[in-house]
Amino acid sequence: MKLTKEQDQEIKEQQSQETRTKRVTAPELERILYEAIPILDHGFVRVVDYMGNDTSIVQAARVSYGKGTKKVSTDSGLIRYLMRHWHSTPFEMCEIKYHVKLPIFIARQWIRHRTANVNEYSARYSILDKEFYLPKTKHLAAQSQSNRQGRGDVLQGEQAKKVLNLLKNDAEQTYNNYETMLNERYDGSVIDEKEVGLARELARMNLTLNTYTQWYWKTDLLNLMNFLRLRADSHAQYEIRVYAETMLETLKKWVPITYDAFMDYRVGGTEVSAKGKTIIQKFIKGEDISLENSGLSKREWNELMEAFNLKDKLV
Amino acid sequence: MKLTKEQDQEIKEQQSQETRTKRVTAPELERILYEAIPILDHGFVRVVDYMGNDTSIVQAARVSYGKGTKKVSTDSGLIRYLMRHWHSTPFEMCEIKYHVKLPIFIARQWIRHRTANVNEYSARYSILDKEFYLPKTKHLAAQSQSNRQGRGDVLQGEQAKKVLNLLKNDAEQTYNNYETMLNERYDGSVIDEKEVGLARELARMNLTLNTYTQWYWKTDLLNLMNFLRLRADSHAQYEIRVYAETMLETLKKWVPITYDAFMDYRVGGTEVSAKGKTIIQKFIKGEDISLENSGLSKREWNELMEAFNLKDKLV
Amino acid sequence: MKLTKEQDQEIKEQQSQETRTKRVTAPELERILYEAIPILDHGFVRVVDYMGNDTSIVQAARVSYGKGTKKVSTDSGLIRYLMRHWHSTPFEMCEIKYHVKLPIFIARQWIRHRTANVNEYSARYSILDKEFYLPKTKHLAAQSQSNRQGRGDVLQGEQAKKVLNLLKNDAEQTYNNYETMLNERYDGSVIDEKEVGLARELARMNLTLNTYTQWYWKTDLLNLMNFLRLRADSHAQYEIRVYAETMLETLKKWVPITYDAFMDYRVGGTEVSAKGKTIIQKFIKGEDISLENSGLSKREWNELMEAFNLKDKLV
Amino acid sequence: MKLTKEQDQEIKEQQSQETRTKRVTAPELERILYEAIPILDHGFVRVVDYMGNDTSIVQAARVSYGKGTKKVSTDSGLIRYLMRHWHSTPFEMCEIKYHVKLPIFIARQWIRHRTANVNEYSARYSILDKEFYLPKTKHLAAQSQSNRQGRGDVLQGEQAKKVLNLLKNDAEQTYNNYETMLNERYDGSVIDEKEVGLARELARMNLTLNTYTQWYWKTDLLNLMNFLRLRADSHAQYEIRVYAETMLETLKKWVPITYDAFMDYRVGGTEVSAKGKTIIQKFIKGEDISLENSGLSKREWNELMEAFNLKDKLV
Repeated sequence: MKLTKEQDQEIKEQQSQETRTKRVTAPELERILYEAIPILDHGFVRVVDYMGNDTSIVQAARVSYGKGTKKVSTDSGLIRYLMRHWHSTPFEMCEIKYHVKLPIFIARQWIRHRTANVNEYSARYSILDKEFYLPKTKHLAAQSQSNRQGRGDVLQGEQAKKVLNLLKNDAEQTYNNYETMLNERYDGSVIDEKEVGLARELARMNLTLNTYTQWYWKTDLLNLMNFLRLRADSHAQYEIRVYAETMLETLKKWVPITYDAFMDYRVGGTEVSAKGKTIIQKFIKGEDISLENSGLSKREWNELMEAFNLKDKLV
Repeated sequence: MKLTKEQDQEIKEQQSQETRTKRVTAPELERILYEAIPILDHGFVRVVDYMGNDTSIVQAARVSYGKGTKKVSTDSGLIRYLMRHWHSTPFEMCEIKYHVKLPIFIARQWIRHRTANVNEYSARYSILDKEFYLPKTKHLAAQSQSNRQGRGDVLQGEQAKKVLNLLKNDAEQTYNNYETMLNERYDGSVIDEKEVGLARELARMNLTLNTYTQWYWKTDLLNLMNFLRLRADSHAQYEIRVYAETMLETLKKWVPITYDAFMDYRVGGTEVSAKGKTIIQKFIKGEDISLENSGLSKREWNELMEAFNLKDKLV
Repeated sequence: MKLTKEQDQEIKEQQSQETRTKRVTAPELERILYEAIPILDHGFVRVVDYMGNDTSIVQAARVSYGKGTKKVSTDSGLIRYLMRHWHSTPFEMCEIKYHVKLPIFIARQWIRHRTANVNEYSARYSILDKEFYLPKTKHLAAQSQSNRQGRGDVLQGEQAKKVLNLLKNDAEQTYNNYETMLNERYDGSVIDEKEVGLARELARMNLTLNTYTQWYWKTDLLNLMNFLRLRADSHAQYEIRVYAETMLETLKKWVPITYDAFMDYRVGGTEVSAKGKTIIQKFIKGEDISLENSGLSKREWNELMEAFNLKDKLV
Repeated sequence: MKLTKEQDQEIKEQQSQETRTKRVTAPELERILYEAIPILDHGFVRVVDYMGNDTSIVQAARVSYGKGTKKVSTDSGLIRYLMRHWHSTPFEMCEIKYHVKLPIFIARQWIRHRTANVNEYSARYSILDKEFYLPKTKHLAAQSQSNRQGRGDVLQGEQAKKVLNLLKNDAEQTYNNYETMLNERYDGSVIDEKEVGLARELARMNLTLNTYTQWYWKTDLLNLMNFLRLRADSHAQYEIRVYAETMLETLKKWVPITYDAFMDYRVGGTEVSAKGKTIIQKFIKGEDISLENSGLSKREWNELMEAFNLKDKLV
């Protein structure tokens, strides 16, 4: 990730500003505020603002339940209780804003989380940077044979090289032609003074989906956790997972108590269906139960065994 | 508005906490942070947290439009432009959180604004305060004869007194019976040690709709303005309008440039239909146009004339 | 539940209208369309419109996954897969609209589900019906001693009678005074021709929270299931649970395949935390684990044992 | 627009299904249900389901206002009143679902309307069609010199040809390389049996933004109108405007009364700021007012004059 001098300067200025506030703060998060944390080859995540911390959740819950919360003596106990019982509204009382640079095909996945506020760089107004995502060789996975949306083994040798070349050449060529059509380069210089350029809102259609875009993305803590639960999951596409993993680290700095409860109940937890519960009960009671008399499909059976790490029961 | 000693103490503590932050601040708003601004007889509004200020809007817009915003030289010019052209997403980049105490029948109007986060005091968990809204005599308006949802003249003398008495006595009686059913008083003291109380989630149904409730209410700047536009309007019910008007003052302290644009384009502005535009054009050109040949209903004609303060054209 | 002649007539007319459509239909649901299903003493639920059925979910999923869904051969298999893996967007492709009559204190719980469209009867415009909820004796539960928001044993004899009397008398008295203040009765007759009535938007504040209101409530299938999961749960307040249970029946008639998957994976299922998973694994492997060395609180331990119906392990 | 045989067959089957329903219907819309209306070179819009019609709005409003609506005698009068006064919730009572095929760069604009349900074709699961948008020569506009996000004159002769060639060649080349990387063609045939293909979720990044995608898009009538108001506007990008214009036609067939009110109050109407109102008043009274003493910027002055078609006052 290379920042322009301009960006670098802006970040330094933001980091050096320090004022007084009566609002609650998150000291660990303040430490990395505005910092551009590199992701993939040209992307980054920056926390640019936030509101509230763990105590805001507790405070909202105590307003909500009134004297009813007096029994739960610690903030941690209360937050764990809220998380466990899906009392979700107190978590909406905190808000965070990120500045993210990411490839367009990942932005298209990300935007499906609707409960967020977004300001994206507009290629109708301005010219996009000449930056596109090229995977590292170790991430050039083959199509999984067993899972329609998964990855299999990593491509080897010549084939990997070929794929990287195609990605690189196509991205460069289409970007160059984008500039040609615009009759303008990213730096604003005109290519041919005698010609007029194609409208930016049209020329952009020639760019490939690995071109980087950027946006401000703001959401509340509850919806952030919903996002992270799905996108930091091992089934998420690698290229969005690395963003989610970095954001998990910022979550930890922001609301450490909530982070712990989230890891225990959501990320590390599992769901069990009514049928699944019966099977688990029989296991515990030492009763006889196998795929055949479980009422589950083979796939579902194996998902259940994996959730509880019962490798010897996989079929 | 009387605050309990406990509340008073909590507010003082919140106001005395002062830490350093790298986040942007709104100095005028900091000055009144946590302060309970009295509304009606027992209600209040407190700003308890916020995120961003006018510069956050500008920053989001500049990320969004890239170099495309360079032409608009001032923050104020850009914010006015965004407001005028309904480029609304940059306004979503700011967030504010209020603590509000309000009568239940007003809470029921308020909650219809769905794009907000809410934590309300729960009468399933805890006992509600013995506080209910009683209008001042000058607000005891008769039903409007012309407008189904409006108010007419103020009630006079004996009738006003009678109404106030009914409201007061019924609220007190139902609250007392609420305590009797709970077998418990608000302060937690048990009424009859030999009896058991009705479940709180049931007993609450005996309370009247002017009983006060309270909540934390958090929303972004765009949705706050949508709320204020409707609720600070002269057609809004007085009892919610006073909340909106107080919140307008906090808006001014928070984002003064946005506030000015909002007052000019939204609160002070008007909408004109296609038919209305034609009529205005004819007026300007000195052409002959009246209700009869306007294609408007009488009601619509008068609404148009009032919007432009053309009193002599009312019919 | 008594319907007015007018309502009864309207329902009959709606039920007798039958036209042709090219849209998909839900035959079982058509059979009860518009019917007022009685709930509590004066409430009801009516399905008044719907869009889509089980096949709409399948169709949306197949557009979404393209050829990728060919492997899953049956509609039921695909819907179960979607439900299990929280692929939730196809369930948003169906929509349903209810007409509900319910006590105000229940309406206040219900409205917290924000992702729905609502048109509620307005007491600013019109006079509310003289109908209020009075629980049956068997539902007059005492406050739970162990759970701040729960119910304990049913009140007995004299105390139950006393409570019912208080509820009944207070509701009637406040309603009568509501009419007095309005100077108008529900049927529109004026009480005293020489007097003017208080504005409806003010008079309504004198009503108690068990007064019935009504609304049209429209939501998509995903959000309906979110609502039902919480509100048909045994921890939900009885007075909202009866609505949810009736709506569960309409869900079954509307989308029977989805209903089965929902009952298995959501309603009948459970969530297990990371710590809980370890405990379950140890149980299965016959290893020694008890509350003391589990890392769980007593409350959490018991919740886990109850989820898997392990009564002998409760502590 | 070419439909595959499969698609053509599916549409025919859907159109031939005809069942009975007690729901309200929209006869004009039924006539074109499922039909693929061609847009751009490969795109289309199809209405695939709907719920409600003009009477649903009226019914919801009458439940909401109770006896308060009796004065407004006609459905049309009531709908116009609701539209004029932004009583928007009754319009949320109708729902519509479209199947849309559109270029990715347009899909990215479209998706910013968050209040909708979407199921998009997933290029993680399946291979995208070999179809990309190539503008007609007459739509190859140059960048506007005055408006950062607008279009200027159409490109001429050689330059137009050059642009079209670049777009065409780049799209074809990147698609071919997409197939090469996948080691698979769209029809499912394997290219080289000895090789393994790159994961679909990675290969897709090589496609250009004019590649077509498709989705099911469902929204309520209110949000549809919000979408159409912005996207059928003359300032919207041509490539999304053509979709909006086609959908406007479907709106007319679905809810003709609402359509008329929408065209009058929203599409054909304008907004006037507080300052603008003063200027209009002075015009009407024949008072002296010009840009200089108006308090408006030149740009804002001209926008106001254009809104009222006062060409002679443009500066």
